Amino acid sequence: MVHYKNPLLVLGCVAEWQGRILLCRRAIEPRRGYWTVPAGFMENGETLQHAAARECYEEALAEVEIGSLLALVSVTHAHQVHVMFRARMTRSEFGAGPESEAVGLYSEADVPWAELAFPSVEFTLRRYFADRAAGREDHHFAELTRPLWHNEKSIPTAKVEG
Amino acid sequence: MVHYKNPLLVLGCVAEWQGRILLCRRAIEPRRGYWTVPAGFMENGETLQHAAARECYEEALAEVEIGSLLALVSVTHAHQVHVMFRARMTRSEFGAGPESEAVGLYSEADVPWAELAFPSVEFTLRRYFADRAAGREDHHFAELTRPLWHNEKSIPTAKVEG
Repeated sequence: MVHYKNPLLVLGCVAEWQGRILLCRRAIEPRRGYWTVPAGFMENGETLQHAAARECYEEALAEVEIGSLLALVSVTHAHQVHVMFRARMTRSEFGAGPESEAVGLYSEADVPWAELAFPSVEFTLRRYFADRAAGREDHHFAELTRPLWHNEKSIPTAKVEG
Repeated sequence: MVHYKNPLLVLGCVAEWQGRILLCRRAIEPRRGYWTVPAGFMENGETLQHAAARECYEEALAEVEIGSLLALVSVTHAHQVHVMFRARMTRSEFGAGPESEAVGLYSEADVPWAELAFPSVEFTLRRYFADRAAGREDHHFAELTRPLWHNEKSIPTAKVEG
């Protein structure tokens, strides 16, 4: 494992199809079995938007158009910055990529709030639905300074140092 | 030198004092002698806003309050994402930190446009002044896919691979 001196970017999106949004149940640690929006590490050579769309295709086999900026979360204990966009699925097909056990479209009322994988996912989804209800598309900042996960045993120790 | 698989975050700000903005002439390569807004690599354990304020203090010895999001630039050839904020200097003092040869407050008309260090700095400043003239504070995306620098000899080869 390389120990970075600098935070890594995690890119993701809230992808909507006919009013419902795409969630993935994680097939890998950390937080295997818990739910997330499609998201993952940005790679060299891509833009923020391309990374978010690529992760959505890899984890949920869904094609999206990336829209407005939704959330910028400094996850200081994990040395990560999470950048989340709004997105629109361009066709109805989706499925479970290799890092997902299950993928589904959820209405706001059906989101498994108690089984979300990470606090940044909850922050992102709460702001998404609040903005949608208000008819606006703002962007939102948050700082997450320590894990708030339900099952602390699943926290990888390399990510909580510092 | 560590070769990262993932882009690094560069945080900076356009810091205003009584209508003029803070620019630094770089004392280090790349682009020594050219002008930039205060900006540098985000470090572990800080937020986006903290990193932008820290860089402003280190390079321009200026204390700022970070404001709204201004620019998000995917610099794909350099494996960097530049995130720029608006900022307000909280006192009039400033000076040259160790990475700056000179620091000054510039009106829009006096910005040394032909001697800016990086295309992302020009993008950031153009959007800043356009928004200010229009009385708005939007955020702006850009993708920079290759160097547009005047003096190509100063480009560090490790940063233009890929």
